[in-house]
Amino acid sequence: MQTTGDTQSSTLDEQTVLRTRMKKIKHKIAVISGKGGVGKTVIAVNLAIAFALQGHENRVGLLDADLHGPCVPKMLGMEDQKLRVGPIGAFPALGPLGVKVASMAFVLEGKEVPVVWRGPLKMRAIQQFLSEIAWGELDFLFIDLPPGTGDEPLSVLKLLPEMDGVVIVTIPSEVSQNVVGKAITFSRQLNVPVIGVVENMSGFVCPDCGKETHIFRTGGGEKVAQESSVPFLGSIPLDPRVCEASDLGHPFIMENPDSPASKAFMEIVEKIKTYIQEKENMSPNETGDK
Amino acid sequence: MQTTGDTQSSTLDEQTVLRTRMKKIKHKIAVISGKGGVGKTVIAVNLAIAFALQGHENRVGLLDADLHGPCVPKMLGMEDQKLRVGPIGAFPALGPLGVKVASMAFVLEGKEVPVVWRGPLKMRAIQQFLSEIAWGELDFLFIDLPPGTGDEPLSVLKLLPEMDGVVIVTIPSEVSQNVVGKAITFSRQLNVPVIGVVENMSGFVCPDCGKETHIFRTGGGEKVAQESSVPFLGSIPLDPRVCEASDLGHPFIMENPDSPASKAFMEIVEKIKTYIQEKENMSPNETGDK
Repeated sequence: MQTTGDTQSSTLDEQTVLRTRMKKIKHKIAVISGKGGVGKTVIAVNLAIAFALQGHENRVGLLDADLHGPCVPKMLGMEDQKLRVGPIGAFPALGPLGVKVASMAFVLEGKEVPVVWRGPLKMRAIQQFLSEIAWGELDFLFIDLPPGTGDEPLSVLKLLPEMDGVVIVTIPSEVSQNVVGKAITFSRQLNVPVIGVVENMSGFVCPDCGKETHIFRTGGGEKVAQESSVPFLGSIPLDPRVCEASDLGHPFIMENPDSPASKAFMEIVEKIKTYIQEKENMSPNETGDK
Repeated sequence: MQTTGDTQSSTLDEQTVLRTRMKKIKHKIAVISGKGGVGKTVIAVNLAIAFALQGHENRVGLLDADLHGPCVPKMLGMEDQKLRVGPIGAFPALGPLGVKVASMAFVLEGKEVPVVWRGPLKMRAIQQFLSEIAWGELDFLFIDLPPGTGDEPLSVLKLLPEMDGVVIVTIPSEVSQNVVGKAITFSRQLNVPVIGVVENMSGFVCPDCGKETHIFRTGGGEKVAQESSVPFLGSIPLDPRVCEASDLGHPFIMENPDSPASKAFMEIVEKIKTYIQEKENMSPNETGDK
């Protein structure tokens, strides 16, 4: 039984290829959540777009590491794309602003085909996404991890020890907070810095009367961040336009840049940029060559 | 590498124990979803309570098969309980109306402790939940499965081929629908009947002005059910009281029985009861002894 095995099944060559490819990517940030359905993929997609918008066009990658429910392509309007295979590996698909995307959805034969895989196969798939995709030179690689603390997150965090950090997404409810605590402990056990907690689906403002309702309660993200002594990055309000934009394949920060949700999101992006900058200043020689 | 192995690692004895225990449970229904965060656990918890309320007090079990993010105990106000160990196995914890609950949360040392397990260990854990818990004689066992089509759902569906069927929970958005399609295909591949699709978090009615907003869009659940030719069981509106009740550990159908969410939910329960009844009528001799 393979319970702790991380890369045993890969040959030395595969690991060398993975290291070579990953060295060309300056920063790696994973987006994780304890519980599913907190809008983690929406956050990952819009983070990639936000960084591409702000000076990193064609220099951002996005790995959809959710093998069972890959949603990144749908949210970026890239559903009909496939990975193009070339002599040096497969090429990622190209999204808006030159964002390079790899996803299980580009490999499957149909939308309804489930990936009925157990752990070891999933570990292999993720390793291949990192080593056999010709990501090229990138400033940022964002990784959208499936919820929980199982095979996929474990594989990614172990395969990429140089990870700049993880952004943890939650909704305000207490039930979610419990699970976020687990995600924080998980990151710490694996020595991956927690960049901070994002509270998504915070309040809902009725478009008719302006009254705000806290459908999934409020303040949970900040509370769990404080309790665990990790930074709180901000709250993003519930906005039907976010879901609509995602379904249409348009990142909401491009579709509705003036909405409160987009503004809240861009403030979070600023905090992540500051974190990266401070990290770069602290270890100027290590960047991109860890 | 163990990729297809289901029960190879269990001895014949363990399988006999599992079969013996499971034979005493008349009906087994799993609650699944493609995507996380669609309220699957809320549905599973309230299904167990609804059946206990309607003539099955002390005769309903609920297995929380989400090993990474077990939320059932929190939603039933049972966070401080542990599994009691006796000579014939561990005893499930007792929830409201005598609902018997088993969950990873009852085994872990603290709320923040993550279960960092890969696939094979997870399969073992689930097998033990089914075989080593003294469930006793039950009319119903509901199983709350984690999202996706990976190790845990696969283990449960393979270990319980006599499953009456699965209830698939979704939210209305198109992104979710894609993933629900995968869950339906997954169930079919494993020959498990789909009892139907529940659309959760449907519309939100502003408590101030009464205006309804479709935050996560609308109609997706019915659409995906139609497209896949499986029954549509109904829509449950978004209601802040559902989240509040869950955080407080009170099943919302007991806490707010007159709310539109509870009424919609009870209609779904009726449909599931009809399904079970029709199944029983079709094969009167097989019940409980398959």
